[in-house]
Amino acid sequence: MNIREEAHKMKLVSPKLAASSAELRNKALEAIALELNTHKEEIFNANHIDLDNARENGISEAVFKRLKFDESKLEGVCDGIKQLILLEDPIGKVLLDRELDEDLELKRISCPIGVIGVIFEARPDALVQISTLCIKSGNCAILKGGKETVNTNKVLFDLIYKSVVKAGLPEGCLLQAEQHNEIDELLKCEKDVDLLIPRGSNSFVQYIMNNTKIPVMGHADGVCHVYVDKAADIEKAISIIVDAKTQYTAACNAAETLLVHKDIADKFLPEAYKTLVDAGVSLRGTKEVTKIINAQEMSDEEFHKEYLELVLSVKIVSDIDEAIEHINKYGSHHTDSIVTEDMDSAEYFMQMVDSAGVYHNCSTRFADGFRYGFGAEVGISTSKIHARGPVGLEGLMTYKYKLYGHGQIVGDYATGKKHFNFKDIK
Amino acid sequence: MNIREEAHKMKLVSPKLAASSAELRNKALEAIALELNTHKEEIFNANHIDLDNARENGISEAVFKRLKFDESKLEGVCDGIKQLILLEDPIGKVLLDRELDEDLELKRISCPIGVIGVIFEARPDALVQISTLCIKSGNCAILKGGKETVNTNKVLFDLIYKSVVKAGLPEGCLLQAEQHNEIDELLKCEKDVDLLIPRGSNSFVQYIMNNTKIPVMGHADGVCHVYVDKAADIEKAISIIVDAKTQYTAACNAAETLLVHKDIADKFLPEAYKTLVDAGVSLRGTKEVTKIINAQEMSDEEFHKEYLELVLSVKIVSDIDEAIEHINKYGSHHTDSIVTEDMDSAEYFMQMVDSAGVYHNCSTRFADGFRYGFGAEVGISTSKIHARGPVGLEGLMTYKYKLYGHGQIVGDYATGKKHFNFKDIK
Repeated sequence: MNIREEAHKMKLVSPKLAASSAELRNKALEAIALELNTHKEEIFNANHIDLDNARENGISEAVFKRLKFDESKLEGVCDGIKQLILLEDPIGKVLLDRELDEDLELKRISCPIGVIGVIFEARPDALVQISTLCIKSGNCAILKGGKETVNTNKVLFDLIYKSVVKAGLPEGCLLQAEQHNEIDELLKCEKDVDLLIPRGSNSFVQYIMNNTKIPVMGHADGVCHVYVDKAADIEKAISIIVDAKTQYTAACNAAETLLVHKDIADKFLPEAYKTLVDAGVSLRGTKEVTKIINAQEMSDEEFHKEYLELVLSVKIVSDIDEAIEHINKYGSHHTDSIVTEDMDSAEYFMQMVDSAGVYHNCSTRFADGFRYGFGAEVGISTSKIHARGPVGLEGLMTYKYKLYGHGQIVGDYATGKKHFNFKDIK
Repeated sequence: MNIREEAHKMKLVSPKLAASSAELRNKALEAIALELNTHKEEIFNANHIDLDNARENGISEAVFKRLKFDESKLEGVCDGIKQLILLEDPIGKVLLDRELDEDLELKRISCPIGVIGVIFEARPDALVQISTLCIKSGNCAILKGGKETVNTNKVLFDLIYKSVVKAGLPEGCLLQAEQHNEIDELLKCEKDVDLLIPRGSNSFVQYIMNNTKIPVMGHADGVCHVYVDKAADIEKAISIIVDAKTQYTAACNAAETLLVHKDIADKFLPEAYKTLVDAGVSLRGTKEVTKIINAQEMSDEEFHKEYLELVLSVKIVSDIDEAIEHINKYGSHHTDSIVTEDMDSAEYFMQMVDSAGVYHNCSTRFADGFRYGFGAEVGISTSKIHARGPVGLEGLMTYKYKLYGHGQIVGDYATGKKHFNFKDIK
């Protein structure tokens, strides 16, 4: 398959999908859930082949769980599809309605971005989630999943695509890339692909960001911090850092660094140490930290590190400004939390920390589209352009300006024959 | 000057500027207008040097007008500053306020993007406009203007920077790059510069887009179309195409291509031809067009061309779908207009044309932030990411999520001990 040719064709299909009714798109989603259930044995059989191959390659139990697609995973994705159907149609919202002059009306209308490339990890449920999100939002998509589930992906994609076209959505609105070298081809499609969403390891996402001219939404690093202020409630602080570090260590919103105000360090650190070690966490810290607790001494450069395992960096700061400076310098602008009973310090921290999420007295693990109540999550963005933080359906939308005239020309306004008379229409 | 070091320092200054009050930022804007007026002779003298140099290099009258900074240009930029002061503060708007659960409140708050790099054409008034837009929106900026006005730029920038710091905004919030090779350094600052806004020629903007990992807002091409439908009012159509082509030929929103429905071509084209030729326009067209009017025959590939002069491509299409397909294929997704009295055709065209602006019965020249009533214009974007079409102050804004808790941890929600209870707060 020639990805660049296919992307070019898809670009011309995208206005047709964008013009489809919400009813039709929801009907397609229903058809997908039905088709997956009808053909579930086919899917499970393909998945067994992938699992057997994976076992031969000696993968870990954690990865095995992710590759597996069984009855309960099927139920999960079908529940997701039902929820997606219930979400409000994101297309055609009137974001601005303004009379520029008599009989000259400007409307800003939400519309799909167009063609989206999604490169995702080996998780068959991700394929279903991503393709249904794209259908709901009226976006054409080129999907490339992890090679470890190639057989499952093929069956799933074929069922999804068949349902979508049968429901009446335009042919060519979804495409699956199956070869790894097709990723590099996809990265070159800047004329036809409007947005790339890469998911996976830090180095993989970094590779995508460094090798394409297509805008990329997502995040490479997740170096999140919990700062325990001098006015912290110690019980809250311990509970929050343990949750932020251990509740799901491999997540991007897990904490990597604990910052502690010097005035509270002697009291807080030994207590926190006990609970963290009991939870299986290894601690690293600056020289000052090692004087108080048994932590492995580390260099400043290591504060950039995203562990994604039960390891925590610890640093003592002399004041809130040092904490903020540390986070803005060593963090990844993802999510950072302050624990304090002093509201002024909390507001100051939340103002000055330059991250997508700034939290007060709660765990960084809340940074997630579902926990924010978005109903669906596209990913989490650490960029400041387009969408920032957890991204719901609206991250897959853009807008266009429609201007309705009656023969108006700019010359009349330039010469003063006519004048603009802006009036917002409620 | 080492741009990369300076950008890195600026990144750390940016949260301080973002935290400044609207009052302080407006005070700084007032101080700028006052300072420019107080030192206007200095500015005019520097500008005379630039103009003398330009004359020696034999520039055109049109360019000369753009380089000139005189009493009337000064008045213009000071009027602009006054208007900017009156605009609502774009920082700190509550875009979402939601209770996730009892005592766990999520707010999405608008905030500045951070550090913006603007590379602009040789127009001293542009330097004032851009730097004041950045101050109003709380963004730090690295500015690089065209070398033809280097002396004027230096004086203007020094006055602006002095006023801003004297008014109380943080040192290092604005920086001027003066050397051309510093552009390439700036393009490498992806860790510290959040957004680039290049303005200037097609090839220059394309160069920027192709040589940086920093997100770029703007447009390279402006290949805009006017489609005259079979149900067009011929008088309106002629007036619109003449305005769209000739009212300001060098603008990105000027029309480059006229598409005409075959049913109306025999009647419309000879009439349009007369008026266009009288307005100084040269016509090019497909073979079919040359059978009706005296146009130079052209190839299909040439429909990609942005003339930026009094030349117009003409094509006859067999129906509205062919017009839409042509625009989506050869256009630059900027602004395209349909002339028709048939509302259904108008709506269909506006739905299917994949451009930032889709117009009915009016000139493409309306695509402009001031004409849309935005009060200030950052530029026009043909990307679908972040901002699209004419971009006002909001194009310089992003948002952050603030989550206010009372010790909440995700573990309690994962185990079912607690449940989310989403409630939007009005």
